[in-house]
Amino acid sequence: MDTMQCLLEHRSIRKYKTKEIEENILNQILEAGFRASTTGNMQVYSIIVTKDQQRKDELCNYHFGQAMVKQAPVILTICADFNRFNKWCRQRNAEPGYDNFLSFMTATIDALLVAQNIAVSAESFGLGICYLGTTTYMADKIIEFFNCPKDVVPITTLVIGYPDEAPELVDRLPYKGIVHNEYYQDYSAETIDDIYKEKEALAQTQALIEENKLDNLAQIFTNKRYTKKDNIAFSNSFLKVIEKAGFMNNGE
Amino acid sequence: MDTMQCLLEHRSIRKYKTKEIEENILNQILEAGFRASTTGNMQVYSIIVTKDQQRKDELCNYHFGQAMVKQAPVILTICADFNRFNKWCRQRNAEPGYDNFLSFMTATIDALLVAQNIAVSAESFGLGICYLGTTTYMADKIIEFFNCPKDVVPITTLVIGYPDEAPELVDRLPYKGIVHNEYYQDYSAETIDDIYKEKEALAQTQALIEENKLDNLAQIFTNKRYTKKDNIAFSNSFLKVIEKAGFMNNGE
Repeated sequence: MDTMQCLLEHRSIRKYKTKEIEENILNQILEAGFRASTTGNMQVYSIIVTKDQQRKDELCNYHFGQAMVKQAPVILTICADFNRFNKWCRQRNAEPGYDNFLSFMTATIDALLVAQNIAVSAESFGLGICYLGTTTYMADKIIEFFNCPKDVVPITTLVIGYPDEAPELVDRLPYKGIVHNEYYQDYSAETIDDIYKEKEALAQTQALIEENKLDNLAQIFTNKRYTKKDNIAFSNSFLKVIEKAGFMNNGE
Repeated sequence: MDTMQCLLEHRSIRKYKTKEIEENILNQILEAGFRASTTGNMQVYSIIVTKDQQRKDELCNYHFGQAMVKQAPVILTICADFNRFNKWCRQRNAEPGYDNFLSFMTATIDALLVAQNIAVSAESFGLGICYLGTTTYMADKIIEFFNCPKDVVPITTLVIGYPDEAPELVDRLPYKGIVHNEYYQDYSAETIDDIYKEKEALAQTQALIEENKLDNLAQIFTNKRYTKKDNIAFSNSFLKVIEKAGFMNNGE
């Protein structure tokens, strides 16, 4: 499949056929993932494959019961992982200094570049994918579920399988809303109105507002989808995960 | 270009021709970036384009003087950005609750998925790319350099241009070293030796060890490339950046 076509036609898929993913295709997809850039070629990430139905049913609970976690044949949990690298260092009489937040960021970046390569690669085989943001919310439970050792933090999850729906392409903000030339050009009130006007005018936006009995789309985000209360609770829980995983040494 | 071929043939490019990137190609690459998955379709990222030679020369300093930052025609600084989204919310009488670490992670994930789409897309046009890890190290200086407001944190940088070198494909760890089935299978000493043996046997690894006058490759990482002292200093600096950007409200 042509690369640009593959990138431009991405839709997140939330309904999957029960059809398995052929072993050799899944292997090719993962191998394409490993070709992503990685800091210093350290590859400080791991991928946990869930295929077993009972395990998927259980994992589904940690992803707020989203049914696709049970339906799709393969769930990939992609983790920031310094465990393997640190063990290697220690076996080579080299003392690793990766118990800090920078190293967590390094491993997070590694993990996400691999994740997106896997997503693109899967789509090039006609598979559908969906990212689960719930991974960081429930990282403590997911660590337990997979028996992850210290130095390992789940960052994102990819649901993969053959699509059982063909959704429309989702809207995106216009180019001028995202790209800055030479300097960050902060947004005036007029620019904000201009950037969001197309999104706000969509029929589906109007339907959402009605359904939620709110004044506008922004309130659906702040009052329903991503509330301050939830965000702060999940923040505190995730920061504890990072600390417990051993990434918060500040040198004191 | 075929997607799998594009992914499998990735090499980071560190030497670039002076040739400009055609405006319409750069636009297509960025548009392909925007198609990446994004949490709740919030698109909480921004991309700052640096093309001006004087600006590139200055930016190069913040990337530890890596010459490709001056040479390549386009440098993209990819930022986690809740500034635009928060401004929109406030203009719509919706109080944003995105001043916390979870929101920073959400925006970081968004930013990195876009970055990798841009990298893949650029390579499909025959361009070369290189990620700069120095972005998180020097985020405070880079924020000043671009006049980034609160709620914006640079996460990674992509150098893009026409390649002036054709490096060999870089080694990667074997599949079994990265992928776990159903449970995280922690590594035994024997497994670690097995996973790293190919990398350690490479001629270039031997050359590096000799050049650095150290015992092995792991020591090059711990004692030279990514030392504990540097990592902790950059960690503390980056955590301050995140706090100053307004992402560390813990609800207390």
